[in-house]
Amino acid sequence: MGEFELIRHYFAAAACARAGGDVVLGIGDDCALLAVPPGEQLAISTDSLTAGVHFPDPCDPYSLGQRALAVSTSDLAGMGATPIGFTLALTLPFVDSNWLAEFARGLDAMAAGCDMRLIGGDTTRGPLSMTLTVFGRVPVGEALLRSGAQPGDLLCVGGALGDAAGALPIVLGEREADTVEAAALLRRYWSPQPQLALGQALRGKATAALDISDGLLADCTHIATASSVSLLIEQARVPLSDSLVRFAGTEQALQCALGGGDDYLLAFTLPADALPTMQSEGWPVHVIGHVEVGEGVRLVDADGRSVGIGHPGYNHFTN
Amino acid sequence: MGEFELIRHYFAAAACARAGGDVVLGIGDDCALLAVPPGEQLAISTDSLTAGVHFPDPCDPYSLGQRALAVSTSDLAGMGATPIGFTLALTLPFVDSNWLAEFARGLDAMAAGCDMRLIGGDTTRGPLSMTLTVFGRVPVGEALLRSGAQPGDLLCVGGALGDAAGALPIVLGEREADTVEAAALLRRYWSPQPQLALGQALRGKATAALDISDGLLADCTHIATASSVSLLIEQARVPLSDSLVRFAGTEQALQCALGGGDDYLLAFTLPADALPTMQSEGWPVHVIGHVEVGEGVRLVDADGRSVGIGHPGYNHFTN
Repeated sequence: MGEFELIRHYFAAAACARAGGDVVLGIGDDCALLAVPPGEQLAISTDSLTAGVHFPDPCDPYSLGQRALAVSTSDLAGMGATPIGFTLALTLPFVDSNWLAEFARGLDAMAAGCDMRLIGGDTTRGPLSMTLTVFGRVPVGEALLRSGAQPGDLLCVGGALGDAAGALPIVLGEREADTVEAAALLRRYWSPQPQLALGQALRGKATAALDISDGLLADCTHIATASSVSLLIEQARVPLSDSLVRFAGTEQALQCALGGGDDYLLAFTLPADALPTMQSEGWPVHVIGHVEVGEGVRLVDADGRSVGIGHPGYNHFTN
Repeated sequence: MGEFELIRHYFAAAACARAGGDVVLGIGDDCALLAVPPGEQLAISTDSLTAGVHFPDPCDPYSLGQRALAVSTSDLAGMGATPIGFTLALTLPFVDSNWLAEFARGLDAMAAGCDMRLIGGDTTRGPLSMTLTVFGRVPVGEALLRSGAQPGDLLCVGGALGDAAGALPIVLGEREADTVEAAALLRRYWSPQPQLALGQALRGKATAALDISDGLLADCTHIATASSVSLLIEQARVPLSDSLVRFAGTEQALQCALGGGDDYLLAFTLPADALPTMQSEGWPVHVIGHVEVGEGVRLVDADGRSVGIGHPGYNHFTN
């Protein structure tokens, strides 16, 4: 089977039309064509995943397909965008039909869950890696940027942090995975769920937002820098899952939550008067601190004393 | 220097605002934001280049930067789109400042020539490769598809073919490069010029179009299949450059033009009555055949006799 038929064959399900009518032309021509509804703008993000760097090799291709799309789509959630579609550039050392079929099935499962469509791609031979570019739409002026946090705003996250980082020793084969807790953490690593609905609900409410991919502290630093403010995080309020605490212990769980990365949950700043509505509507909003005048991120213990900040988040070229 | 500063530092020039006002938000947030003018649609294409597959390793990073963007942008030309910007996912085995600076300079030179802006990216560690996703805009209903060729239309190309394929033995170090002809062919390999203006001029005139990347015969087959027609190519009318004929000889030059790939010039079908206007306006339109009822591509010699078709174009997973 030639390169040209490869994507079409295995990725046919992911390339099928879904509910959204924004894809005018999908796979098969020089370019895909997207229609952007009047009053909306296009949000775009690109992420690469390389074997041995971003995921172990070998690994389960179905899980990899799910994770690859979730990681990129989470950036759309961080902007409050509604997903449209994505392109996939896939580099493979050789053609393995079973691997491709499973990878495509995992990718399509995540695409269906996010109501996205594969609109284009490229397939090349080389060491296993992939680059996904995702597309969404957002009303003009309503995109959630990193730059709008104001002193006095609450600092919030969209759920319990650190689970994916907690799963890393299992993913890397350094620890056994035969407990209920381990299974729960592994699900969070391999199948993160982009908080798309939460991101959209935060439009017009949150003053700044992003998805946590590099670790809470590192990503909060991005908001602090972009907004020219200081973020104060109360360590005791950082939400941790029971699974993570049981699996890793409280101290290690906290380190996973603060510095681990790969959460793909939202962090955002919210004016205090917007909190009751969000909570009464049932959105997962966990207040972990607030915004102050100043710069950088400050972590405090239950008594308000500053705690030293260690690991600044994952960084491919300095770690 | 950390991953986050890397792209910003070296690619600052390419990320700067250019004439087009369609980029609402560039590098630095979860997503870039594009505004698409009313009455227009967004054209999107993705291409990966892997060291040792799509370019020799090592090679001149400035030339590589130019070529990487040209290859992708040529797909916008093939749709008749006006370029807006691009994302770059760059995988590097290690950080080499000189290499990055030169690569970025070459990329920016091509970006400036095409009036495009770098709007996002990702940098990861791994074997050298890159994926570029390019964005352009095109008026609703005017994109040049592969599917509209009609029996009776003329089959045309935008210039002399085969130069890049002719340069391949030099690129691979199999032949010396100390002649004027060799230098001309190398320029066509490393610095192809996407025919953006021609593509835009063909809107509303050409019935089908694409950019020739896999070789004339292979790409004409794509038009024939998408349009459910047959394309007849008159071998004697396929334009060849003097440089290529002198460097490779007439027979080999023709093989480069028919099957070589990497031309990044347009092939298109044009109703006969549209030809005089295009020619009087000075567009590079070379008629090489015509569209017939039927299927597939047929190559004929000067006497109208069918010629066997050999190499069907480059294909990463079958060659």
